[in-house]
Amino acid sequence: MLSDLKKQVYKANLDLYNEGLIVLTFGNVSGIDRDRGIFVIKPSGVPYSMLKPADMVAVDLEGRILETRLKPSSDMPTHLELYRAFRGIGGIVHTHSAYATSFAQALKPVPCFGTTHADSFHGAVPLTRKMTAGEIKTDYEANTGKVIAERFAKLDPMSYPGVLVACHGPFTWAKNAADAVVNSIALEHIAKMAAMTSLINPSAGPIPKALLDKHFLRKHGPKAYYGQKA
Amino acid sequence: MLSDLKKQVYKANLDLYNEGLIVLTFGNVSGIDRDRGIFVIKPSGVPYSMLKPADMVAVDLEGRILETRLKPSSDMPTHLELYRAFRGIGGIVHTHSAYATSFAQALKPVPCFGTTHADSFHGAVPLTRKMTAGEIKTDYEANTGKVIAERFAKLDPMSYPGVLVACHGPFTWAKNAADAVVNSIALEHIAKMAAMTSLINPSAGPIPKALLDKHFLRKHGPKAYYGQKA
Amino acid sequence: MLSDLKKQVYKANLDLYNEGLIVLTFGNVSGIDRDRGIFVIKPSGVPYSMLKPADMVAVDLEGRILETRLKPSSDMPTHLELYRAFRGIGGIVHTHSAYATSFAQALKPVPCFGTTHADSFHGAVPLTRKMTAGEIKTDYEANTGKVIAERFAKLDPMSYPGVLVACHGPFTWAKNAADAVVNSIALEHIAKMAAMTSLINPSAGPIPKALLDKHFLRKHGPKAYYGQKA
Amino acid sequence: MLSDLKKQVYKANLDLYNEGLIVLTFGNVSGIDRDRGIFVIKPSGVPYSMLKPADMVAVDLEGRILETRLKPSSDMPTHLELYRAFRGIGGIVHTHSAYATSFAQALKPVPCFGTTHADSFHGAVPLTRKMTAGEIKTDYEANTGKVIAERFAKLDPMSYPGVLVACHGPFTWAKNAADAVVNSIALEHIAKMAAMTSLINPSAGPIPKALLDKHFLRKHGPKAYYGQKA
Repeated sequence: MLSDLKKQVYKANLDLYNEGLIVLTFGNVSGIDRDRGIFVIKPSGVPYSMLKPADMVAVDLEGRILETRLKPSSDMPTHLELYRAFRGIGGIVHTHSAYATSFAQALKPVPCFGTTHADSFHGAVPLTRKMTAGEIKTDYEANTGKVIAERFAKLDPMSYPGVLVACHGPFTWAKNAADAVVNSIALEHIAKMAAMTSLINPSAGPIPKALLDKHFLRKHGPKAYYGQKA
Repeated sequence: MLSDLKKQVYKANLDLYNEGLIVLTFGNVSGIDRDRGIFVIKPSGVPYSMLKPADMVAVDLEGRILETRLKPSSDMPTHLELYRAFRGIGGIVHTHSAYATSFAQALKPVPCFGTTHADSFHGAVPLTRKMTAGEIKTDYEANTGKVIAERFAKLDPMSYPGVLVACHGPFTWAKNAADAVVNSIALEHIAKMAAMTSLINPSAGPIPKALLDKHFLRKHGPKAYYGQKA
Repeated sequence: MLSDLKKQVYKANLDLYNEGLIVLTFGNVSGIDRDRGIFVIKPSGVPYSMLKPADMVAVDLEGRILETRLKPSSDMPTHLELYRAFRGIGGIVHTHSAYATSFAQALKPVPCFGTTHADSFHGAVPLTRKMTAGEIKTDYEANTGKVIAERFAKLDPMSYPGVLVACHGPFTWAKNAADAVVNSIALEHIAKMAAMTSLINPSAGPIPKALLDKHFLRKHGPKAYYGQKA
Repeated sequence: MLSDLKKQVYKANLDLYNEGLIVLTFGNVSGIDRDRGIFVIKPSGVPYSMLKPADMVAVDLEGRILETRLKPSSDMPTHLELYRAFRGIGGIVHTHSAYATSFAQALKPVPCFGTTHADSFHGAVPLTRKMTAGEIKTDYEANTGKVIAERFAKLDPMSYPGVLVACHGPFTWAKNAADAVVNSIALEHIAKMAAMTSLINPSAGPIPKALLDKHFLRKHGPKAYYGQKA
C-alpha cells in the first residue's frame, strides 16, 4: 500500500526534524516501493509542524508526478536520478545540516578519523565535482543526481551511504527512509568531530586500514555481529 | 486592525525566542501597516516570558509613539529609518545571535560559500562601515538605520534581506515580520556554516555565479518554483 | 525575612541551571541581606533537581555558618570575601560555563569586540593573576576572593560585574542574585562570540570608545534609557 | 539482587542519553556486583527509547553470557577486561561524545588546563597507544580493554577515571554506574573547554601543580571536603 510508504516517509521526515538536523524547511526525505516503481517525497516548502502523511507526493521512476494536490520537493529530480542509479537503495535524505554542509562548502571530503565514522562509511565521505554552468542552468536538480552517480562510478553506494555535493550539502541513503535518516544523523556527528579533530591536531591522519575494516564490517556485510538478530 | 498587527508581531517575537536566537532580552521584531503608516515593535527590556500582544508599542512614520504605557525597544529609531528607506519591507528583526554577531564584530561580511546562503541572499551578507563618534554620540539609534541605508545605496534590500552593523550585530527584514524572522534564522545558520567552512578550509572561495543565481532565483523573483503556490 | 532571601537565591540557582550554564553541580549562587549582614548560598554538591529553598545555607559576614543541617558550597569563603570587598553588590554567581571558563584557562581577558559586551561590561572582562602555591595550599577559597578584590583595586565592580579567575572560571555579581545570573548568562554569550570573532578574524580589534560608552551608559548609570521605568 | 543492579544500570544508560552524550545507539553503560562476580550491560544496538531494565544482559567474569534473550553490547569484552584489570571499579561508560572522541581521533590526551578538569582527573586524560593490526583482527574488543589496562600500568584508575582509546573514543569508570556517567559528562565538558582554550590561546599551558592537587584532593581522597557527608 502506498499509504504505508507515505507513513514511513512522513515519520522519517519528522524524525529528521526532531533530531535537529533541519533548519526551517531545508531538507527532505523520500522512500521507494521498488515493486511498484513509485517513490514518495516531502512536498516543497511545507513547514514540518504542518506536515501530514497524506501530504507526501508520489512520483514514478519516469519522473511523473502521480498526485497534483501539492508540489513535490524541488529536489525531487535529484532523488529520481539516485533511485535510478543506485538500485539497492530504498530511501534518500537531503539536509543542510551545519557541519556536513560546511565540508561540502569547503570542497573537502570528510576524512575518516575514527571508528564512529568507520561504523557508517567504509572510508572518507565522497565529494562530487563542481557542476558546470550548463549543468546548473538546465535541469539543475536532475544534474545534481547525475553528478552524484558519476562520483560513484567506482564506489559501492552501500559502503558509502552518502555524499557531499560541492558548494551545496549532503545526501544520504539506505535500504529504507528510516535508515537513511540514521545515516544522516551519523554523517553530521562525524563531520562535526572531523572538524574538531583537525582543530585539535591539524596533522591528524586517517584511521588505520585494519580498524576501518573491523568497524565497518562488524556492522555491515555478511559477518556483521553488531545489534540483535533481525 | 492594529490589534492583528500586534498579534503578528508578538508571535514573531516569540518565534524568534523559541528558535533560540535570543539571549536574555537582546533582540526585537517589528511589523508595519503601510496603509496606515504605523508600525508596532516589542517594548524595551521586557522578558519574553512575560510579553503579551497588547504590549507591542505603536509608532508612526514620524517617530511619534502612539501609546505611552510601555516604552518601545531602544532600537525603535533604527527600525523607523529602515521603514522609511526601504519601502518594500513590512517587518524587521534585530538579534545578537552568536555567529552573525561574531561576523559583525570581526568586521567581515558573511561570504556566500554555498546554496543554503544563496537560497536567502543574492551574495555576501553586507557589512556597514563603522559609525563615527559623532554619529554615535547624537541620535545613535537613528544613525544606525542611516548607516544601513547608506550601505544599500546600490543594493536591493529584497535581494539582500539583512545586514551586519559593524561592531554590533545583524538586522534582517522581509515583506512581513514572520518572514523577517525566517531570514534571521537563515542568517544565523549560514553565518555558523561560513565560520566552520573557513575553519575546515581557510582558502574556501565563494559559490560559482551560476549556482548563486540558480538558488536565489528558484526561490525568489518572477520565475520562482520553490514551495507551494500561494 | 531570611526565608524570602532563600527563595530568591533558590530561584536564581534554578534559573542558572535551566539556562544551561551548569554542568553537573559545577556552580553556585548566593544573595545577601545587607541590613542583617547575612548571606545565603547553595549547599555543596547537592544536585539541582533536588534543591529546595530551605536548603540554602545562611552565613554571616564573619564567615560563621548559622545553620548546620547542610554544608555551604565549598566556594562560600570566596563569596564572603567578595561581599566584604564590594559593598555595593547583593548577589554573586559562580559557574564553569564553557566559553567563559575557556578564557580563564587560556589566561586571556575577554576582549570587548562589540555592543553585546558593552551592554554589560564597560571594557574587557578582567582576569586575575595566578595564585601562588602558598595562597592555594592555605585558605584557598578565601584567597580566591582576595585575588579578585586585588584585581579590582582600580576598577569599579559595578562597571565590570564579573571576573575570570585564572585557570579556574568566572564569577559575576550584581545588586541581587537574579541580576547576577543575568550577568552570568551575558558573560557566557559574549565569551563565546569573542572566541568566534577571533576565529573569523584573528586581527579583530576592540570596539571604539564612543560605542563602548554609548552602550554601557544607555543601560547603566544616571542617564540610562534602556528598559521600562522601575 | 541482580534486578536491582539492572535497574541501576538501566537508569545510568538513560541518564547518559538524556544528558545528550549519546548519538543514535553509540554508547553503553555497565555495572558490576563484585560479590557475585557478575556484571550487567546494555544490549547491542537497541534504541534508548525502547530499553527496559530487564533488557540489561548479565555476564560473569569469565565472559559467559548468562542470559541469551538479547545479545550484550558488542563492546562487552572491553568492559570485561576493565573489570578484571581495575578491581576498585563498579561501573563503566563508553560513549562517542563529540569532543572527547575528537581528542581520541586527534591522538592527543586532554590537557589539564583548569580546575574543572582537576575536579575529576588528577592530570591529563590518558590516551592509549594505537592497536596493532593483529590486535584488531582477532579479539578486537577484548584487546581494546587490554590496551587500556596497559596504559594504566603506572596510573591509578581512581585518580584518572577515564581514558581515550586512540582513533576510537572515551571510556570512563567509577565505583558504580551512576558515578561513571558523571565522569563521562565531566570528561565531555572538559574536552570541549580544552579545545576552546587552545583555540583562544594556542600556547596555553597546564594548570599549576598546587592547584591541580588542591582541586582533585578537595573532592577525592581522605581529606575531601566537597559535598555533604554520606
